[in-house]
Amino acid sequence: MKNFTSVKDVQNINALVEKALSLKANPFQTKLAEGKRIGLIFFNPSLRTRLSSQVAAQNLGAQAVVLDIGKDGWALEFEDGVVMNGDKAEHIKEAAAVMGRYFDVLGVRTFPELKSKEADYSEKLLNAFIKYAGVPIVSLESGTRHPLQSLADLVTINEQWTATRKPKVVLTWAPHVKALPQAVPNSFAEWMGKADVDFSIANPEGYDLAEEFRQGVPVFHDQAEALKDADFVYVKNWSSYDDYGQILSQDESWTFGSKQLELTENAKVMHCLPVRRGLVIKDEILDGPNAIHLEQAENRVYAAQAVFYELLM
Amino acid sequence: MKNFTSVKDVQNINALVEKALSLKANPFQTKLAEGKRIGLIFFNPSLRTRLSSQVAAQNLGAQAVVLDIGKDGWALEFEDGVVMNGDKAEHIKEAAAVMGRYFDVLGVRTFPELKSKEADYSEKLLNAFIKYAGVPIVSLESGTRHPLQSLADLVTINEQWTATRKPKVVLTWAPHVKALPQAVPNSFAEWMGKADVDFSIANPEGYDLAEEFRQGVPVFHDQAEALKDADFVYVKNWSSYDDYGQILSQDESWTFGSKQLELTENAKVMHCLPVRRGLVIKDEILDGPNAIHLEQAENRVYAAQAVFYELLM
Amino acid sequence: MKNFTSVKDVQNINALVEKALSLKANPFQTKLAEGKRIGLIFFNPSLRTRLSSQVAAQNLGAQAVVLDIGKDGWALEFEDGVVMNGDKAEHIKEAAAVMGRYFDVLGVRTFPELKSKEADYSEKLLNAFIKYAGVPIVSLESGTRHPLQSLADLVTINEQWTATRKPKVVLTWAPHVKALPQAVPNSFAEWMGKADVDFSIANPEGYDLAEEFRQGVPVFHDQAEALKDADFVYVKNWSSYDDYGQILSQDESWTFGSKQLELTENAKVMHCLPVRRGLVIKDEILDGPNAIHLEQAENRVYAAQAVFYELLM
Repeated sequence: MKNFTSVKDVQNINALVEKALSLKANPFQTKLAEGKRIGLIFFNPSLRTRLSSQVAAQNLGAQAVVLDIGKDGWALEFEDGVVMNGDKAEHIKEAAAVMGRYFDVLGVRTFPELKSKEADYSEKLLNAFIKYAGVPIVSLESGTRHPLQSLADLVTINEQWTATRKPKVVLTWAPHVKALPQAVPNSFAEWMGKADVDFSIANPEGYDLAEEFRQGVPVFHDQAEALKDADFVYVKNWSSYDDYGQILSQDESWTFGSKQLELTENAKVMHCLPVRRGLVIKDEILDGPNAIHLEQAENRVYAAQAVFYELLM
Repeated sequence: MKNFTSVKDVQNINALVEKALSLKANPFQTKLAEGKRIGLIFFNPSLRTRLSSQVAAQNLGAQAVVLDIGKDGWALEFEDGVVMNGDKAEHIKEAAAVMGRYFDVLGVRTFPELKSKEADYSEKLLNAFIKYAGVPIVSLESGTRHPLQSLADLVTINEQWTATRKPKVVLTWAPHVKALPQAVPNSFAEWMGKADVDFSIANPEGYDLAEEFRQGVPVFHDQAEALKDADFVYVKNWSSYDDYGQILSQDESWTFGSKQLELTENAKVMHCLPVRRGLVIKDEILDGPNAIHLEQAENRVYAAQAVFYELLM
Repeated sequence: MKNFTSVKDVQNINALVEKALSLKANPFQTKLAEGKRIGLIFFNPSLRTRLSSQVAAQNLGAQAVVLDIGKDGWALEFEDGVVMNGDKAEHIKEAAAVMGRYFDVLGVRTFPELKSKEADYSEKLLNAFIKYAGVPIVSLESGTRHPLQSLADLVTINEQWTATRKPKVVLTWAPHVKALPQAVPNSFAEWMGKADVDFSIANPEGYDLAEEFRQGVPVFHDQAEALKDADFVYVKNWSSYDDYGQILSQDESWTFGSKQLELTENAKVMHCLPVRRGLVIKDEILDGPNAIHLEQAENRVYAAQAVFYELLM
């Protein structure tokens, strides 16, 4: 594995899941990363990703150094051949290369602006780090994907599923008051496409994910139909991809509650957090026995630890 | 000890003071906390508490991770059963539970707003962490108490006092230009009430602390009368509890200087810092041999280290 | 070495350079600093200095704790004998002394305001830390000097230079759109004055550095004349010292490109970063084989590590 920015970077996802579960069982089994340095660069705020990555790095014995860069704190130039006489203080060529000199692995967090599909989906910042840093890059969430979350999600599904048949996994849209990125659902869909599960997606019309992420996946615009016999339901809001970054619906009939749960095979209910109670998922679910959102959050540590392990060893 | 948010959480305060002094004599005597993780969550800025807690955790070999949360950075919902369609992005139930999954001990820093006595004294945030985190909670100062400061204060008194008789300890109010919390004086009073000292309080009328903190303690509204024969004087401003959060007096005759010191038994003079020179305590005292404010600051490390030790071992 | 704020603090600069190169060859050769604590206090933002100092401290096995203090975050009083009833919350006497109680070495970063020559060149903040902290102080860049940068620069020159004759080193001004401090050029000039090199400076009229930094150094106002036969060219903008903090020229004929390089002895080209491409140095140089700016950045780690080593051992 050279970088970790998408499921495509992973040669063997089952082995990576097993590694994460093994690290969860024994987090300090290896201190082989002593003397290794992991830089965690946040261009956008983060809570779970930040804490779980730091803990993961420290569990391995690696040095983790966090750098918070405010939106206006480090104005980077990305164009080649320009005279930098405006407000950009440093070119990405130097910024990424210097970080690469200080660290053995670099984690980078960036968000989409949800204004231009082309800008967000070009992943300019992440790709520039890959091009210029000279060391492995880990996405700590980018404009289009959140692979550490997806790996933790898959780890959680494996951990919870004990039957021999394939589990049925459904990703369902839910309403929200703010326009949210597609990174988590894109990434979850991409990972489920490679995992040993039956996967489908439910969302209102206008909310279909970009084709590259849902190819071959059944997409339902009727939530009830999709939820039938589900073993795992991943509830998540996202803004429209087609009508880019827009909120087309706030239909609370999609809010996940007991009514939805009853349609499933007593499914485990997942969310990446933060979750707005009552709006995305009802209290009756989050406070009940089917919710596994805290297990997902906990598994973020071991997902990150497995990825750092693979990149550093 | 299950949590450390007040002196009431401590079974044996003498043993805790001895532990702190023992750790000061030999800070690295135990690395038993290796592999343990301490999360330090600051909802309000901090200098001494932040640094001393980090050093304390690292002295024990524990992993310390600091999370700074700006006032508007993480809008938490505290009400049950609401539909979260406003500006609150996460419910305390998830926020605290996730932190609890990442750390073995959580330190939490929060300040009072000094607008509503009921709101501040309900300690909503601290109590929610206790309720939902599932791991021991350490107050890094809350709306009503600052127990790590008080423990460091008691450690300092023990360290300085070599006579066999009980020392006389006086907490005296002093003027200030800003409305300050009652957390430090409340907490100091509460700890002195359990310590082997003669304790009294001096403050202008209208500045009596809440009854729960001063019960059984002589309160003087005449500073000179209170200071007579004092061995230790703790000087500190606070805003009114009765006329909640208000500044009722800026009477500089209460500023602690040589005139006040002469009334005492050559008392040691204490302050939790930051101290406004000339206004709260005069330079003649702070630059003289009676001041022990820097010793108090230094002992913050060993107070925190003793508390983390007790909670982790 | 008692402090590290200028080349004058260093008894033997060759030994310090050798130590840095030895640490670069084997960063973990010594963990003698285990149990030692380094505080890194940033009154101004920092990227390279912050990361390289943290990595350096951790390489030595020391505990590094970073404290970011926003410009308005910690209003310090510097005057003696005042009544602090304004907006200053803490006196430098306590602030520095407390930091000194928590750490074995303190790094301090501060910037000039470029409004008053007297204020900036008095180094009030840095000198107060030296006076009151009671532990060794390391400048992480101050109003007038950036000695960790200069040490890294000298390490880089030593690393690159293999001939037996003395190298010719030229510091040349280049244009910029913002008024920048003189700290880097001052400091570089001061270090080159003690190093085994032939050193000269090129800058437009009005840009001569303060005399204390350039005494005995040939200063050219004609860039071409200065660059002749140079083996190393350090390109850097600074604002005027005489017309304090002003931008007197933005003459792009001073921008360093191939035309300038041709005048030299195939010189290595240096910059402390961040560098504005096209304005300070042209892409043709930064992307070519003569640029060693990334080596300088990398050597920041080992410069800091050598300094911490000397102060802690």
